[in-house]
Amino acid sequence: MLGTPQCPANIQKVIDNLIAEMRTHPANGQVADYIPALKNVDPDSVGIACCTLDGEVITAGDADKDFSVQSIAKIYSLVMAMTRSDDQLWERVRMEPSGQAFNSIVQLESENGIPRNPMINAGAIVISDIIVSRYSTPNHAFVQFVSRLCGRDPVLVDNTVFASEKKHGHRNAAMAHLMKDFGNIHGKVENVLEHYFYQCSLSLNCSDLARSLLFLANKGIQPTTGETAGEEVCTRVDCHRVNAILSTSGMYDQSGEFAFSVGLPAKSGVGGGIVAIVPNFGVIAVYSPRLNQFGNSHAGKWLITEFAQKLGLSVF
Amino acid sequence: MLGTPQCPANIQKVIDNLIAEMRTHPANGQVADYIPALKNVDPDSVGIACCTLDGEVITAGDADKDFSVQSIAKIYSLVMAMTRSDDQLWERVRMEPSGQAFNSIVQLESENGIPRNPMINAGAIVISDIIVSRYSTPNHAFVQFVSRLCGRDPVLVDNTVFASEKKHGHRNAAMAHLMKDFGNIHGKVENVLEHYFYQCSLSLNCSDLARSLLFLANKGIQPTTGETAGEEVCTRVDCHRVNAILSTSGMYDQSGEFAFSVGLPAKSGVGGGIVAIVPNFGVIAVYSPRLNQFGNSHAGKWLITEFAQKLGLSVF
Amino acid sequence: MLGTPQCPANIQKVIDNLIAEMRTHPANGQVADYIPALKNVDPDSVGIACCTLDGEVITAGDADKDFSVQSIAKIYSLVMAMTRSDDQLWERVRMEPSGQAFNSIVQLESENGIPRNPMINAGAIVISDIIVSRYSTPNHAFVQFVSRLCGRDPVLVDNTVFASEKKHGHRNAAMAHLMKDFGNIHGKVENVLEHYFYQCSLSLNCSDLARSLLFLANKGIQPTTGETAGEEVCTRVDCHRVNAILSTSGMYDQSGEFAFSVGLPAKSGVGGGIVAIVPNFGVIAVYSPRLNQFGNSHAGKWLITEFAQKLGLSVF
Amino acid sequence: MLGTPQCPANIQKVIDNLIAEMRTHPANGQVADYIPALKNVDPDSVGIACCTLDGEVITAGDADKDFSVQSIAKIYSLVMAMTRSDDQLWERVRMEPSGQAFNSIVQLESENGIPRNPMINAGAIVISDIIVSRYSTPNHAFVQFVSRLCGRDPVLVDNTVFASEKKHGHRNAAMAHLMKDFGNIHGKVENVLEHYFYQCSLSLNCSDLARSLLFLANKGIQPTTGETAGEEVCTRVDCHRVNAILSTSGMYDQSGEFAFSVGLPAKSGVGGGIVAIVPNFGVIAVYSPRLNQFGNSHAGKWLITEFAQKLGLSVF
Repeated sequence: MLGTPQCPANIQKVIDNLIAEMRTHPANGQVADYIPALKNVDPDSVGIACCTLDGEVITAGDADKDFSVQSIAKIYSLVMAMTRSDDQLWERVRMEPSGQAFNSIVQLESENGIPRNPMINAGAIVISDIIVSRYSTPNHAFVQFVSRLCGRDPVLVDNTVFASEKKHGHRNAAMAHLMKDFGNIHGKVENVLEHYFYQCSLSLNCSDLARSLLFLANKGIQPTTGETAGEEVCTRVDCHRVNAILSTSGMYDQSGEFAFSVGLPAKSGVGGGIVAIVPNFGVIAVYSPRLNQFGNSHAGKWLITEFAQKLGLSVF
Repeated sequence: MLGTPQCPANIQKVIDNLIAEMRTHPANGQVADYIPALKNVDPDSVGIACCTLDGEVITAGDADKDFSVQSIAKIYSLVMAMTRSDDQLWERVRMEPSGQAFNSIVQLESENGIPRNPMINAGAIVISDIIVSRYSTPNHAFVQFVSRLCGRDPVLVDNTVFASEKKHGHRNAAMAHLMKDFGNIHGKVENVLEHYFYQCSLSLNCSDLARSLLFLANKGIQPTTGETAGEEVCTRVDCHRVNAILSTSGMYDQSGEFAFSVGLPAKSGVGGGIVAIVPNFGVIAVYSPRLNQFGNSHAGKWLITEFAQKLGLSVF
Repeated sequence: MLGTPQCPANIQKVIDNLIAEMRTHPANGQVADYIPALKNVDPDSVGIACCTLDGEVITAGDADKDFSVQSIAKIYSLVMAMTRSDDQLWERVRMEPSGQAFNSIVQLESENGIPRNPMINAGAIVISDIIVSRYSTPNHAFVQFVSRLCGRDPVLVDNTVFASEKKHGHRNAAMAHLMKDFGNIHGKVENVLEHYFYQCSLSLNCSDLARSLLFLANKGIQPTTGETAGEEVCTRVDCHRVNAILSTSGMYDQSGEFAFSVGLPAKSGVGGGIVAIVPNFGVIAVYSPRLNQFGNSHAGKWLITEFAQKLGLSVF
Repeated sequence: MLGTPQCPANIQKVIDNLIAEMRTHPANGQVADYIPALKNVDPDSVGIACCTLDGEVITAGDADKDFSVQSIAKIYSLVMAMTRSDDQLWERVRMEPSGQAFNSIVQLESENGIPRNPMINAGAIVISDIIVSRYSTPNHAFVQFVSRLCGRDPVLVDNTVFASEKKHGHRNAAMAHLMKDFGNIHGKVENVLEHYFYQCSLSLNCSDLARSLLFLANKGIQPTTGETAGEEVCTRVDCHRVNAILSTSGMYDQSGEFAFSVGLPAKSGVGGGIVAIVPNFGVIAVYSPRLNQFGNSHAGKWLITEFAQKLGLSVF
C-alpha cells in the first residue's frame, strides 16, 4: 500500500509542521459539556502521536497530556469481550453501520434490542454486559488489559469523570433497561452500567493510545515495544473485524465522510481524542477537545486527514 | 498490500475450484421477484470473472452470460455525475452509511430529503437528476459511457426489464416526489425516474463488469485493455471517494458484515451480480441470481469471500 | 345535553359580541403559504355562521365570504365514499388518531400503506381512490353532492387553487405512490390525485359549510331547509362514525387539546375554516385565515371555543 | 342526551341478558402474561356493574370479584395530580392521542421526552413524578384517595403483582430514564417508578370502579352514595378534560374504533377491566381477563358496546 517506508525523521517533520500550522489557525467547535467533568480542559490543547510497527512513538504538541478517552475505550472492551467469546457475540450486537445518532434509542426499539454495532453506546453496553459476566473483577481486568498494552502501569480512571458519568447517564440507563426488556442484557443493569461508565472514564494520552493499539495495525500481534514483549492480543480474523467495524462505524455520523477523506479505520471520543489504524504501518492518535457538529475533534480530524494525505496512507 | 503478485494461472485455478465446489453445493435463496422480468432467469447460474490491472480477464462458470445489473449501475452513474459536478453534489446526497433498508422513505423524511448516500435508491435518483440536467441525451450518454468502459459496443438495456421497472416503480416514485417536495429534485420527476429505471435495466456479464470498473482499482485511470486506450475516467480523489462509499454502503444492510468478512469495496444488485474492487490489483465480478435475506447474491457473496481470503486481498 | 334550547336571538347576540371582541384583538399567526394561491386573501377576515337544526343560519362578520375549504372537504368525500362502500372501506383506512403530522409518510411505511384515518391526507387519498372507482364522473359528482347539501347550485372549485395544488402536490404524490406500492391505491395515481386536489380546491363560505353539514348533527338526516327537502344523507351509524373520527382526528395535532377545551367533533382546513358539529343542536362554521402552529385557524379556534363554552355545548 | 331516564329494573334486565349471552359465547383472546402475577386468574370470569348518578349500583356476573386494575389506575392518579397542579402540568405531558403502542419509546425521543398524554405509560410516569413531589406519603395518599371514592376502606394493593411489576418493569424504567435525561422527571427515577408500579397493582372490582368514578359523569362532583357524602373531587373543567383525554386515548390503539362503535370516554387495563363514563348518566365497569390484539378485554369491550347501543348512550 505504501510506496516507500516512511522514516521517523520525515514523520517528525510532518507532524511538527501540522501542529505549527494548527496553532496559527485555532480550531472551532465547543468542548463537550454533557457532563460537567469534561468541561474543565484547556480547549486549545492539540497533540499528535504516531507509533510505527517497530514501536517507536513520534510526537508533537500536547501528545503527553492525559485526557478522557471516552468512546475510544470501546475498542479495548470490544477486544476484551471478543477474546472470551465465540461468534455468538455477533448475535447480540451486529456489525452494521447505524445511520443514527450514537445514542439513539429508536433503532434499538425497532430492531428488538440488538444494537447495530459495538461502537455505538448501546452496543458497547452489551459488550460491557459480556465483560461483566466473563471477568470476575471487570474493572480491574480492564485497567490491567489497557496498562499492559500501553506498557504503562497502571493507567488511571478519572474518578471525577466516573462520578459525573454515573450521575448524568440517564440515556445510557434508558438503553440498558430497554435491552434488558428485550432480553439482551443478562446481568444486573446497575452492574453493567457501572462497568460501562468506568471504561469511559479512562484517562490516557496520545502516546499511550498510539502504542497500545499497535496490534490492530499488525494482524493482532502487539510488537515488542520497549519492555513489553510481543504477544498475540487477538486473532488475525478478530483484528480484521475490529478494523472493519472502525472503518464503517468509528466516527459517529461522520464515518462515511472520514472513509471518504481519510480512508482509515478510526475511532473518536467526545473527550477530543481520535485514533486511526494504518494497517501494516502503525497508529496515529490525536487530541484536541473542541468538537465539530458530529462530536468529533475538530482539529484532530484535520490533523489526521492532512497526515494521512501527506503520507498516502489511505487503504483505498 | 499483497505480499506477491498473483499470476493469472493461479487465479484461474482458484476460481475453477470455487465454481466446482459451488456446483456441488447449490446456493439457497430466492430469485428477485419484485418485478416479473427478473424472475425469468436460470436460478442456478453461477459465474465469476477477475480482471487484473493489466486488463487480462480470467473467468469461470457463467461469466459471459448477460444479466440485469440493477443497482450495480449506480457506480457508473455516480462516476458520470461526479465528472460533471463539483463538491456541491455532496450537499444533495451524503456519503454516510444508511442503517436502513435500501428503499426506506423514513430516512428521507427525517433528513429533509437528503439521501444518506448514492448507493441507496433515493441517492441514485438524485444522481439521475444530476445526469438528466447535465447531459442532453442522458440515456444515450449512459450507454456510451458504459460501452466505452467495457470495450464492447454498444451495451444493451433490456426493454422488458425497463418496462417492468417503470410499471412497478411506485416506491421509487414516492421517494422522488418526496425529494421534489423538499426541493432536492430539480428536473421533472417523470424524466428523472425514466433515466433511473433505464440505468437499472442495463444488461452486462461478469467479464464486462470486471473490465469496465478497472479504473476504480487503478486510481481513476482505466488501463489500456485490448483495443481500448488508457484514460483517466475520474480523478484520483473521486476514485478514492467511490471506493469509500462502496466499502460502507455497497452491500445493502450487509455492508458492515461484508467489510468484516471480505474487507473490499463492493456493490451488489438484485439481479444477482456483485462487483468488488481490489485497489492496485483488479476487479472481481460474480453472478448468481438466488439472493439472501439482505438482497445480495448468496453464491456470489460466498465466491468473493473465498476468493478474497485465498488471495489475501482485504484492505484491512 | 342542553339545559334549555337556545333561541336564535341569543345566538346572534353571542356571535356579534365575539366578532366585535375579535376585531379589537386581531389574531396572530400566518396565512398558509404552501401553495401560492392561498396567500392572496385578506389575513384579517373573520366570520362565523351557526346553523341550527331548523335550518336557520345566524351569521356575523365575514360569514358570506368564500374561501378555500381545503381539508374540510374531506368530510364530504368521506360521506360520499361511505354511502357507496361497505365496511371493507375500514380495511383500507383505519379510524384511529394518528399522533403524527397530517402529511407524515413515516406512519404509512411502518403500517403497510394503511392510513390511520380519513382526515389525514393519506387517508383522504384512499377515499379519493374509492370515489374515483365508484363514480363515473367523480369531480362532477362531488360538486353535485356539495351543492345539494348547501342548497346553492353550483358550488365552485377555484381553478387557480386547483392548478397550484397540482403543481405543488409532490408530498401527496409521494404518499399516493407509496400506497400504490403497498397495493392500497387501485386506480391510476394521476387520476386519484387529480380528484383529491379537486376536492381541496372547493370554495365555500361559513354559511354554506354550516348548512351543508347539518345532517351530522341530526343522525344523518339533512333537515328541510329553505327549498331543500329533508333527506337521509347517510345512515345513523355512519353519522356517528364520522363524528367519532372528527372528534379524535379532525384538528390535526391539536385534536386532543380541542376535545379538551371544546369537546365537539370538528374539522379544520389550512384555508382558515373550521366546522364543529353539535349533535342534536346544529353546526358552527368559522373562517379566519391566520393559522396557529398546528395549522388551525387562530381566531377560528378561539371563536368556537368561546361560543361552545358560553352555550355549554360540550359533549362531555 | 337520553330521551328518557332509564329505570334500574331495565338496566338490570339488560345486563343480565348480556352476561347470559356472553356465557354461551365465551370470549377469545389471551390473558395478559407480561408479568407472571397476572396469569393466575380465571380466564372466563366476566362481570359488569353500572352505577347511576343516584349512587345505585346494578351488577351482573363476576362484578364483585377483585382484579388488578392496572392502567385504569391512571385515572385516579391523573385526578390526584391535577388537583395539586396548575396548567403547567400540561407542559410536561400533552393531551394528544398517540398513534403509537402504549409503551413506545420512539415518540418520547422524537418529542423531547414529553409524553403525548397521561394514559400512555410514559405520561403516567410523569404524573407519578408529580404525585411523588406533591404528597409526602404518595402510596398512602393514593390508597386513601381511591378508598374514599369507593366508599370501601381500605382498598388493597396486590403485593405479588407489585413485586412482579417492579421485577419486570424494564421498559418503563427505560422510559423513565429517558425522560429524566430530557429533564422531564424531577424526582429520583427509583422513587417515581416505585409509585407508578404501586398504582398499577391496585385491586378493585367492577362495583368499586363504577362507584368511584361517578364524579366524572357528574361534572366533578361525587354524588352522595350510601355513607359517602357528596363532594367536589375535581373542577368541572378538569372533569371535562379527563373525559376528553379518555375519549381520544383511553383504549390504547383501539381508541378511535371505540369512539366509533361506542362513543363514550373509557379506559381499559391489561388486567381485563374497562370503565366507561356516560356524562350525566353514570359509569359502566366491566371485567373479563381475555384480551384482544390491542390489549383490551375482549368480552368487556363487547359488553360495553352492546349496553351502550341498547341504551343509546353515545355522546355523538
